[in-house]
Amino acid sequence: MSTKKIQGKCWALFIFACLYVITATGNPRTLMSAEEVDTIRAELHTSPSFLQYVNETAARTTQYFDPAPDVPIPVDPGGGYTHETHKQNGIAIYEAGMLYLFTGEQSYATYASELLLKYADLYPTLGQHPVKRSNTPGQLFWQVLNESVFMVYVVLGYDAIRADLDTATRRVIEENLLRPLADFLSDESAYTFNRIHNHAAWAVAGVGTLGYVIDEKHYVDIALKGTELNGEAGFYALIDNLFSPDGYYTEGPYYQRYALMPFILFARVIEENEPAREIFAYRDSLLPLAVYTCIDLSYNGLFFPLNDAIKDKGLNTVELRYGVSVVYHLTADDQLLDIANVQDGFVLTADSYRYAKAIDEGKAQPFQYKTRLIRDGPDGKGGVLGILRDDLGGEGQTAVFKATSHGFGHGHFDRLNWLYFDNGREIISDYGGARFLNIEQKEGGRYLPENTTWAKQTVAHNTVVVDEQSHFNGNVDEADRFSPSFHQFQDEKDIKLVRSWTTNPYTDIALERVIAFVTGLSPDRYVVVDIFNVQGEKKHTFDLPLHYQGHFLATTNESKTVATEQLQPLGKENGYQHLWQQSEHQVPSQSAFGFTWINHNRFYTVHSWVNQPSRVSFARLGANDPHFNLRSEQVLLRRVEKRKDAVFVSVLETHGEYNGPAEFTKNNQPLIEQISYFEIDSNQVVQIKNAKEQSYFIAFARKSDKQAKHKVKVGDFTLNWEGFAAVFNSNGEQI
Amino acid sequence: MSTKKIQGKCWALFIFACLYVITATGNPRTLMSAEEVDTIRAELHTSPSFLQYVNETAARTTQYFDPAPDVPIPVDPGGGYTHETHKQNGIAIYEAGMLYLFTGEQSYATYASELLLKYADLYPTLGQHPVKRSNTPGQLFWQVLNESVFMVYVVLGYDAIRADLDTATRRVIEENLLRPLADFLSDESAYTFNRIHNHAAWAVAGVGTLGYVIDEKHYVDIALKGTELNGEAGFYALIDNLFSPDGYYTEGPYYQRYALMPFILFARVIEENEPAREIFAYRDSLLPLAVYTCIDLSYNGLFFPLNDAIKDKGLNTVELRYGVSVVYHLTADDQLLDIANVQDGFVLTADSYRYAKAIDEGKAQPFQYKTRLIRDGPDGKGGVLGILRDDLGGEGQTAVFKATSHGFGHGHFDRLNWLYFDNGREIISDYGGARFLNIEQKEGGRYLPENTTWAKQTVAHNTVVVDEQSHFNGNVDEADRFSPSFHQFQDEKDIKLVRSWTTNPYTDIALERVIAFVTGLSPDRYVVVDIFNVQGEKKHTFDLPLHYQGHFLATTNESKTVATEQLQPLGKENGYQHLWQQSEHQVPSQSAFGFTWINHNRFYTVHSWVNQPSRVSFARLGANDPHFNLRSEQVLLRRVEKRKDAVFVSVLETHGEYNGPAEFTKNNQPLIEQISYFEIDSNQVVQIKNAKEQSYFIAFARKSDKQAKHKVKVGDFTLNWEGFAAVFNSNGEQI
Repeated sequence: MSTKKIQGKCWALFIFACLYVITATGNPRTLMSAEEVDTIRAELHTSPSFLQYVNETAARTTQYFDPAPDVPIPVDPGGGYTHETHKQNGIAIYEAGMLYLFTGEQSYATYASELLLKYADLYPTLGQHPVKRSNTPGQLFWQVLNESVFMVYVVLGYDAIRADLDTATRRVIEENLLRPLADFLSDESAYTFNRIHNHAAWAVAGVGTLGYVIDEKHYVDIALKGTELNGEAGFYALIDNLFSPDGYYTEGPYYQRYALMPFILFARVIEENEPAREIFAYRDSLLPLAVYTCIDLSYNGLFFPLNDAIKDKGLNTVELRYGVSVVYHLTADDQLLDIANVQDGFVLTADSYRYAKAIDEGKAQPFQYKTRLIRDGPDGKGGVLGILRDDLGGEGQTAVFKATSHGFGHGHFDRLNWLYFDNGREIISDYGGARFLNIEQKEGGRYLPENTTWAKQTVAHNTVVVDEQSHFNGNVDEADRFSPSFHQFQDEKDIKLVRSWTTNPYTDIALERVIAFVTGLSPDRYVVVDIFNVQGEKKHTFDLPLHYQGHFLATTNESKTVATEQLQPLGKENGYQHLWQQSEHQVPSQSAFGFTWINHNRFYTVHSWVNQPSRVSFARLGANDPHFNLRSEQVLLRRVEKRKDAVFVSVLETHGEYNGPAEFTKNNQPLIEQISYFEIDSNQVVQIKNAKEQSYFIAFARKSDKQAKHKVKVGDFTLNWEGFAAVFNSNGEQI
Repeated sequence: MSTKKIQGKCWALFIFACLYVITATGNPRTLMSAEEVDTIRAELHTSPSFLQYVNETAARTTQYFDPAPDVPIPVDPGGGYTHETHKQNGIAIYEAGMLYLFTGEQSYATYASELLLKYADLYPTLGQHPVKRSNTPGQLFWQVLNESVFMVYVVLGYDAIRADLDTATRRVIEENLLRPLADFLSDESAYTFNRIHNHAAWAVAGVGTLGYVIDEKHYVDIALKGTELNGEAGFYALIDNLFSPDGYYTEGPYYQRYALMPFILFARVIEENEPAREIFAYRDSLLPLAVYTCIDLSYNGLFFPLNDAIKDKGLNTVELRYGVSVVYHLTADDQLLDIANVQDGFVLTADSYRYAKAIDEGKAQPFQYKTRLIRDGPDGKGGVLGILRDDLGGEGQTAVFKATSHGFGHGHFDRLNWLYFDNGREIISDYGGARFLNIEQKEGGRYLPENTTWAKQTVAHNTVVVDEQSHFNGNVDEADRFSPSFHQFQDEKDIKLVRSWTTNPYTDIALERVIAFVTGLSPDRYVVVDIFNVQGEKKHTFDLPLHYQGHFLATTNESKTVATEQLQPLGKENGYQHLWQQSEHQVPSQSAFGFTWINHNRFYTVHSWVNQPSRVSFARLGANDPHFNLRSEQVLLRRVEKRKDAVFVSVLETHGEYNGPAEFTKNNQPLIEQISYFEIDSNQVVQIKNAKEQSYFIAFARKSDKQAKHKVKVGDFTLNWEGFAAVFNSNGEQI
């Protein structure tokens, strides 16, 4: 008998054995079911885009396993060789397993099982990781978090090939690697496991998934209810407490994306195994909602850069690829297919395959980004995030008003901050986090010192700073105790607005702001009205920065001093030390100051009015930055000195077009010539005059009753309206 | 008889009349022939993309003519109302005429003829334009140039409808508008018409085209040979003298694009009417070559920003739409179809229709951007522009070495300057012109004062400045007299290089530079080697700036002083007054200084070696800029003080990948650890050591004989090679 024939016979036996074992174990049972494996394999070619993704991943994975990857003794912290190698190996086990399911090629199953066996050799020999930098050290990794993430991948990969393994191999992998991992991450790391914290979500997901994969109910139970099995910890408690009722994660969009992943993965595994739990419907369908909210927290594919955020991060991340495909599986909402347009690929799950297939079938609909009020805090009482959008979809006018909770260690001191996006770009900006993620030359890729000295400070944001001190004096614990009070929100075609106030950032000072999109003044586009009231008991210095992106064109007020021969910092601390002062304009009280800049092919003018004499400084970031860590960004800073109160009224006009290739410019000058402001019986009225001497009034009521009727007299006009706000034309008629 | 029937009869008569007249006049005979009108109208739907362009232009044009456009008495200079209105009207006459040819809709012919008649009323009443700012004033416009451009459009538009007009209407338009325009632009403005200057090309094109359209041979004759009919002026003389034998226009790519347009248009008209002239073959097919050269002078769709250039200008301009479609008509080179990918539309000519149709038929091939040496000067002896490119096409590694003539008033003082592009972006940059074209807020859209004080100065470029003085002391007349001497050029797979030298920019100082792409040291990518030798007779200060784009990451030499609390300008004049000095590093002689930065998702490290003790300053643009006119750009400046000579050796490494979405970084550190340099018997040897302690040698011979053999000893190694340059591995073997 030839060798070939023997091999042939062995294969036949092997295939028979496999069929038998599949029946026996019921695996896979996580991200693809045993029942659907054959169908998906047979139909894979019906989604060319997914097939291409599978082929690319297959090529990369084959390369990864040839030669067999190293499994080193753990030595290094994050970023080091052993750390990165174990991280990559965990993902490789997962990908090889899933590739086996999609392609049926035995080599991938072999890659996964051989690497799992190496870890089954290594893991029992390990004690605590030698790097002592974390309060929650792991064994393979310097911190438990990474070990949990590793476990999630490894267990999912194991699920994919388990049915193929003989009993002895299964026993070695489970007894020497997977159960020890689960025990270490739960009972032996109970503090992390039982915390209400996103790190716990990864441990819970890993342990619980193992429970389903090997049919060990105890692991499922502790994952769902905590090691004490009392429900005060575990998956349900995490869903209850880590997100607001609107699906917002308090650290902000950048971290929300990351925090969501273990929730989505584990919930999907639960649904596959215990559909009766209806886990995705839990807490008013919180998890699907959190995915939608995550998408809503983006502009032109990138997340709003609130708090510590890396600004190139957005919907094109592996976390969102899982998120949108799982939610599409649940809802069949064809708008979700649109998100793939900003994603570079898919993930190796059955849901992602179906998601890709639906796209290939042309089912995608434009995602409708909406004007939304998003509550923060587990009970929805931790402040709000307001998102105002025009009707142009993802790249139109968008304002973000931040009146959320602080967001723990990654929060910034920026109560009542706002951002503005237009034309696909950031126009009024937030610095985000000061960090070059994964770039060794910059503090090893960790947060830079300037994250504390600049990025978190209040002056780095578009909100009021009092006496050059940051909100809550930069104290995180104090900041975490309070959140702004929500007051008004309105989403109507003619006026969209959000209003909030807070007294906590400073002693004896009340801050109140309303941001509104107002129609009718400018053709096709909303004008943004921003009224910031500051009320103190003693005399203070009040600063309101505006961080604009683009090139300075002109100001209406030319009475300035310019630092042409020498630059000096604007202040000594709390972020001011990083700003080079470039010029200073004196502005009389109740007089408007106009500033026009250009960003890409569009013009922006802010008309600024202050009830007190004020100064406007233009400044550029970069002082006291010995390592050139900061980006050279720009700010306009309005200052009122030695006053008990200040009202900053700003009207932002988006106008015109600069067309380089066709060599023309349209409407480079703003329409608005003058603005003024009146406060009458606690109502706020902004008067706008355009170049044709036409007057418009925008009246705001402070009452939170949307049915209340209001009446104020301004000069010759009597303005009558109902609700939060109204616009009146030059005849005093509401429009 | 009903009204409808009467109209029907009139139409029938009208159509008959048209047919008769078409036969009689032979028009159109410029950008579409009378013979092809019917065919193109019938087949227009076979090019959906062109049809869409026609429909868009038709909608815009209909809007323009309803209500009928104003024809004001000329009052304003460039940018003013009457100027812009006449400019737009000229184009509208042209577009309406061409739309009539493409669609057959009579309304467009009527629009064009009615507007032409209004100009026929106005023109005879005009004298010299009231704005007295130009040496060559027009009548409709403040300068003859605009009047010439107006005439080109108007004559082409007239050609399109002439066959449709009755004899009386034709006579009015020709006698009162077109002939007076032609006479004014030729005999009455003979100085401009007969100049060897791009302004003359527009006048010649307008007058000559009229000659063909109305069959007036005299106009054709003076257009071809000048008003004296001696051939010292006119179209042939302009082709002979305004371009180099390689199709380069001495003012640079930005102006080349503009200058080309009347040449292409008029040549196409000549070809249509007198094909026997073979005008496109004239001077070794100079005009088609100039279009190819114009494309070669771009990177990722934008022109190399040499001399006064607006940096957003590139292949997506109307001039290039005419250029590529006409040359495609001549050559059927399917690579030209690729250019449409960076163009937003087409133009209303038969050639452009055929060009669009070929694209719709899927014929486009990738344009092969090549490594090229382009000679400057009418005789090819006015210096060179060297373009080195990798094989990745339009967005790969590209270096530009500028050793051209000065380029008249729009030239910059930057002999032996170089630029570097990679990854679709500008990496080592040129400021271009300091101008916000068409943006009123910035000096009415004209060149800014900083164009003279910064953009033209030598320190604003990547070339040597001596004693803080710009080349030729910033004197244009002096600079125009000299150009650098070309020495070596090589385009081979392993080494591409260009070498040039000059002694004219400074008294008693010789400047010599070689820029080379060298393979074998870095995987997949070329390393750029740059050796700049400066040899004086007395002691001087030598500066070599490097204007880099991206974010500073690290330097190898940390011994620096940083200006953290105060910034001051680097100097007093010649551009130095605009640079804020940020830091200063002391570098011992013959010691390498490494600097790494990141641009988008890629790393760049320059390893710099100087034979003398030197200082490295980092500086940022923006000092002495009271109107915030300058962009905030960055420069690294190497300085040698009080020495007679200096050798600046720079090796630029392009390395690694930063991947934000997938959260990984590869090869963020350069491969090269050390460089050194030896000059042996006039040969130049750069030694490179990598992190593995491997040495590489790159040997350059200065001899211009490419067959010459060379031999040098460096330490233990003997390097033997033939030709301009060679690379040797760590065993001293040529690779």
